[in-house]
Amino acid sequence: MRRKICIVLTTRGNYAKMKSTMRAIEDDPKLELQTVVGGGILLGRYGDYSKYIKRDGFAIAEHVPFLMAGDSLESMAMSAGMATFELSRTFARLRPDIVIVIADRYEALSVAHAAMCMNIAIAHLEGGEISGSIDERIRHAITKLAQVHFPANLEAAERIRRMGEPGCMVIATGTPSLDLLAEVDLDDLSALQEVLEQRGQGCRIDLSENYLVVSQHPVVTENEAVEKQIANTLSAVRSIGMPIVWILPNMDAGERSAATVLAQQGADLHVRVVSSLPMEHYARLLKHSCCLVGNSSSGIRECEYLGVPVVNIGSRQNGRQRGRNVIDVDHDVDAIIWAIKSQLDHGYYESDHLYGDGTAGKRIAEALASISIGLDKRMTY
Amino acid sequence: MRRKICIVLTTRGNYAKMKSTMRAIEDDPKLELQTVVGGGILLGRYGDYSKYIKRDGFAIAEHVPFLMAGDSLESMAMSAGMATFELSRTFARLRPDIVIVIADRYEALSVAHAAMCMNIAIAHLEGGEISGSIDERIRHAITKLAQVHFPANLEAAERIRRMGEPGCMVIATGTPSLDLLAEVDLDDLSALQEVLEQRGQGCRIDLSENYLVVSQHPVVTENEAVEKQIANTLSAVRSIGMPIVWILPNMDAGERSAATVLAQQGADLHVRVVSSLPMEHYARLLKHSCCLVGNSSSGIRECEYLGVPVVNIGSRQNGRQRGRNVIDVDHDVDAIIWAIKSQLDHGYYESDHLYGDGTAGKRIAEALASISIGLDKRMTY
Amino acid sequence: MRRKICIVLTTRGNYAKMKSTMRAIEDDPKLELQTVVGGGILLGRYGDYSKYIKRDGFAIAEHVPFLMAGDSLESMAMSAGMATFELSRTFARLRPDIVIVIADRYEALSVAHAAMCMNIAIAHLEGGEISGSIDERIRHAITKLAQVHFPANLEAAERIRRMGEPGCMVIATGTPSLDLLAEVDLDDLSALQEVLEQRGQGCRIDLSENYLVVSQHPVVTENEAVEKQIANTLSAVRSIGMPIVWILPNMDAGERSAATVLAQQGADLHVRVVSSLPMEHYARLLKHSCCLVGNSSSGIRECEYLGVPVVNIGSRQNGRQRGRNVIDVDHDVDAIIWAIKSQLDHGYYESDHLYGDGTAGKRIAEALASISIGLDKRMTY
Amino acid sequence: MRRKICIVLTTRGNYAKMKSTMRAIEDDPKLELQTVVGGGILLGRYGDYSKYIKRDGFAIAEHVPFLMAGDSLESMAMSAGMATFELSRTFARLRPDIVIVIADRYEALSVAHAAMCMNIAIAHLEGGEISGSIDERIRHAITKLAQVHFPANLEAAERIRRMGEPGCMVIATGTPSLDLLAEVDLDDLSALQEVLEQRGQGCRIDLSENYLVVSQHPVVTENEAVEKQIANTLSAVRSIGMPIVWILPNMDAGERSAATVLAQQGADLHVRVVSSLPMEHYARLLKHSCCLVGNSSSGIRECEYLGVPVVNIGSRQNGRQRGRNVIDVDHDVDAIIWAIKSQLDHGYYESDHLYGDGTAGKRIAEALASISIGLDKRMTY
Repeated sequence: MRRKICIVLTTRGNYAKMKSTMRAIEDDPKLELQTVVGGGILLGRYGDYSKYIKRDGFAIAEHVPFLMAGDSLESMAMSAGMATFELSRTFARLRPDIVIVIADRYEALSVAHAAMCMNIAIAHLEGGEISGSIDERIRHAITKLAQVHFPANLEAAERIRRMGEPGCMVIATGTPSLDLLAEVDLDDLSALQEVLEQRGQGCRIDLSENYLVVSQHPVVTENEAVEKQIANTLSAVRSIGMPIVWILPNMDAGERSAATVLAQQGADLHVRVVSSLPMEHYARLLKHSCCLVGNSSSGIRECEYLGVPVVNIGSRQNGRQRGRNVIDVDHDVDAIIWAIKSQLDHGYYESDHLYGDGTAGKRIAEALASISIGLDKRMTY
Repeated sequence: MRRKICIVLTTRGNYAKMKSTMRAIEDDPKLELQTVVGGGILLGRYGDYSKYIKRDGFAIAEHVPFLMAGDSLESMAMSAGMATFELSRTFARLRPDIVIVIADRYEALSVAHAAMCMNIAIAHLEGGEISGSIDERIRHAITKLAQVHFPANLEAAERIRRMGEPGCMVIATGTPSLDLLAEVDLDDLSALQEVLEQRGQGCRIDLSENYLVVSQHPVVTENEAVEKQIANTLSAVRSIGMPIVWILPNMDAGERSAATVLAQQGADLHVRVVSSLPMEHYARLLKHSCCLVGNSSSGIRECEYLGVPVVNIGSRQNGRQRGRNVIDVDHDVDAIIWAIKSQLDHGYYESDHLYGDGTAGKRIAEALASISIGLDKRMTY
Repeated sequence: MRRKICIVLTTRGNYAKMKSTMRAIEDDPKLELQTVVGGGILLGRYGDYSKYIKRDGFAIAEHVPFLMAGDSLESMAMSAGMATFELSRTFARLRPDIVIVIADRYEALSVAHAAMCMNIAIAHLEGGEISGSIDERIRHAITKLAQVHFPANLEAAERIRRMGEPGCMVIATGTPSLDLLAEVDLDDLSALQEVLEQRGQGCRIDLSENYLVVSQHPVVTENEAVEKQIANTLSAVRSIGMPIVWILPNMDAGERSAATVLAQQGADLHVRVVSSLPMEHYARLLKHSCCLVGNSSSGIRECEYLGVPVVNIGSRQNGRQRGRNVIDVDHDVDAIIWAIKSQLDHGYYESDHLYGDGTAGKRIAEALASISIGLDKRMTY
Repeated sequence: MRRKICIVLTTRGNYAKMKSTMRAIEDDPKLELQTVVGGGILLGRYGDYSKYIKRDGFAIAEHVPFLMAGDSLESMAMSAGMATFELSRTFARLRPDIVIVIADRYEALSVAHAAMCMNIAIAHLEGGEISGSIDERIRHAITKLAQVHFPANLEAAERIRRMGEPGCMVIATGTPSLDLLAEVDLDDLSALQEVLEQRGQGCRIDLSENYLVVSQHPVVTENEAVEKQIANTLSAVRSIGMPIVWILPNMDAGERSAATVLAQQGADLHVRVVSSLPMEHYARLLKHSCCLVGNSSSGIRECEYLGVPVVNIGSRQNGRQRGRNVIDVDHDVDAIIWAIKSQLDHGYYESDHLYGDGTAGKRIAEALASISIGLDKRMTY
């Protein structure tokens, strides 16, 4: 009898993150993969994303529509309940041995709630990290529901143990998000060059020459300062004088503010503006850049793995463990300029693989195949 | 503007526990009480319990039926989802400032999930304790979703802080379950004597003389040993030779096993057998008994408050903080006899008020009226 | 490609009725059967009934729990919605070509609503009949949603056509409830004799001699008169002086009133009282009786098929087409006595097969295999 | 005790239609209005429409979000179930005496299903008409669930009676959609002129001179012919040579096909193209036009009331009762030209008020205040 491992994917990002793990589970003779797609991944501008997942060779065990229409808090909360309700039915049909719960979205708690009620073991990915908002609370609540933990780094693992989880069930595998970076040829820039030219706006950037990447998301709780913050970053990179690829954030108010500031104040810059890129292209762009400037989580995770220098601005990544490649600064033009110059002087870093070495998927599958899990769990203190 | 405090009652026990708190909230000019009744409290052998709540003078803000019919794990999990779904609508209508989440049932997590998604602050009662089963996991998960904590004792409070909750938000009020004991005249035995004669079976017990109380619940995970365990307790109390009031557990398989063992082996005992009693009567019965024998949680909580000697048998109360009034023994006839004799020799104890001094409801209401709560929360490590 | 025919069974009676049709569908090479069980059939005193369905060799395509706990109108209405919701998911997975909707329960409308929204053709069983209560309204509403109609008799068929349904889609197959009667050996009384002795109460009845059967259900809208009505029937059969088998109604308030009246006033009767019997036994009991007295629908349907004389009392079967075997009387002792005597004088009738000839299941399957169904439908006037 | 009348509005069109009835109910001392808004009316490009309803002075008794995200048949069917489920809760809280069910959308059947299960009387608006698609089936099914019927014309009333509804419960009030036309000053063209100039595209039209109005919706079941059909209409009106206001259909594929054909083939026309207008402006535009050409239902309803000549093309309005003002033609250029010329020769018609005289709202309220409704209902044959 193979162990049945169920993964519930609810966003396109979930799939990107889990792909290597899904592959590793399918390759393990002791495991059987059950892929469930539900919620937002079934909708979206480009339609039901599960056709792409199928094209990659994964069977879809079940489609679970659980999103209520509308974007109010009420409809989010109703969707959370609907997800728990519907996934109960799904788990009753599929009868998995272990459900993998991913990170910290509100429906991840629904996945865990349903699995717990159905007496199905829970493995949690990316627990133990620190962030703000409700994600922080959801993440730690799922930790307390889960039996097995696959945190992304040692600090997170330590935090999980300190919350009273048995040490033997905390396995710091790194995040499988990085696995893709180990698979792709990151030096093949021709396709990326083409994508940039098709999809971006502004000046042409020659990727074989030196350039900066800027990626700065709005911080929801600092809403009023957003435009000023972007303007500061823009002033700083202007004074550096290097060509810039500016990545706009996806699908939120910030996309517009960044675009507005760039249109008003960036006319004199040698800049190409693009919306978010597929991860393999984005990784190539980062790897060949001189420095990433802004507040993207990729500065903390992907760039640490790739050794790319990062200037991390402001509070957005507070609490996240970071490597030597990151210089943290406030939203201050002079400080940003100084930090970028320091990074350009330093050049590339060696990676410490804080967030994993690109083998997380395999390590997760190995653990799932061999670990002994009891449903009952008590605090260690 | 008064702070709106919403309490969601889903069992009759919830109401017994929360009554003093509800009264204290109504009495506080800075607070407004919103009583929501849902799930099991609307059903049951005696019908919708909310009529009794109304008779006590509390307005019911909303009825929320969320239970699916049937008693499978699947229907429990579906009910959990339905509770989250329906309570989202309730909270959207009532717009409370704080929702009180009670203890550790599966629908308590639904209450917390809905409140969190709706950006409503969460106060959690009786967090930080240790038990088994899924209750253990639910309790700690709710701790990680809540902003304010009202644990029942200092050990539980310490455990909540060690999970990373800010110390200023952990207020050890004691459990409001004990508040009733401070209000009732525990020495008025006439009504209790009558109830025992009407509802019980077996010999007559004169409450003005010495007697033992036995209350032993089956431990689900030790299913096969249940009858043997009860037989051992029965042998032990037989050899003590005192009159006995034996309280049968309510509504589960154990009711039958205890009744069977008593019928087969207890014919020669001076014993009166009754099903569960209303708390005020049960408290009187305990207070005037010489010793409580068995594994009831009332030995740990109510008897500590009342100073009644307790012989606690087996694993059921493992992990619960206990006072000096408790002697723990295994399911061994000689050990039980020895422990009962020791307790009879000792007699009554002074209470340390480990689980509160009967003022928890007031202290909770005071805290809710004055505490400053931010929705955002970060771990302390 | 075989046509996929989905049957949704929600009560044990649904299964008894549909069994012959299900068998006929499975036997037809052009059809594929999809059996869905949901709602009440999953619960009940004897547990999930689908194990009996499986034991008969039918695969269960899906289990659909949709009942909310509780017996209020609100929980019935919520269950209706939940049934529509959940069956949408079921139909999305099973993708049937035709869904069979049975008769007139509130969840039958849910089945039809979901199928219609999913663009699945609907075949309706037992439309066009007249009754009271909400059943009447549901039945005709389903007629207007359905494309194909299988009424139980010609009067019902005519009524469906008069509601504007195209005549070619109205196929009077008879009710498949009678099919069982054609299959079973109705003269094998030995097992029935044993069942009566095990399950009934009162005097022994020798089935090889003359006896009456009484089956009188309470009429909900005539609640206060129920006991008087039963007493009248009892007086009448007393004066006839024949041995009686009295069948108690199942699972409602009437069970108790009938039992009470019998206990108080029937002490001197030669009567055996039994709760409802499995259909094959009940059919044997009817076939060998001299007369059925009361208001059971079996007097109208099964007895017409079997040729058994019937005295039908009161309003309960108003509007139902009936055969020559029925004498209708009011709740009047003398009238009932006269009618029973007339029937005893007459003896057995020839059947006109008003409600079918025991081949309805086969005829339904044949129609489903061959009929051409468009989803669009317009009134004929 | 005033009768509580509940109206469930689920689209903006619902509100436009019901406004006069809502006003009349509020003005009646024997009635109390309960306005429920749910589903699509809470969403939409311009946000929650209930703020406009409130601005008109109507209190909103409850908001009922029931739409699942996504536009598949499955999500429509799930939404239908969710509507039944949620409205059960709403009706349990509001306890209306009568629920008004509007026309024939899939959620109108949900409203009726929930009301029926809750034993609440149902009044149905615009039953008895003929159309295609699932609307046809839903409309007649609701008729069979409803106790009172307010059809829009005599033909529809006759059809309802022929379906077996008691004649005294069928009250042909006309459609309240026309009531607005009786209230508004239809000769005040200045605001309309301004709106046309702000929102339209193409040539300027002087509304004080002669002009045609074209409004042609795609017929879903004739999908491939849509562009050819529009091109034919365009050829016909070109050869008439009059200025044209072309109203584009709203929010569906047809908007694009019409716009495309106009852009490609209409460059030489004197045409102004606008998206749908608010009803009061649209009514003014129609009233002052020489002829309406196309297949809009406003040709059948509003233009009959206004006396405006109409050339109705193709099958879309098949089955609808029409007045003398309509000439029906096929999608044939010559036939369309001939028909337009005939209508221009004829000029304005007298109205027969087939669809009402602008007092439907008042007549509906009067009937609701006085009619005696039993929940039970039997067919008249």
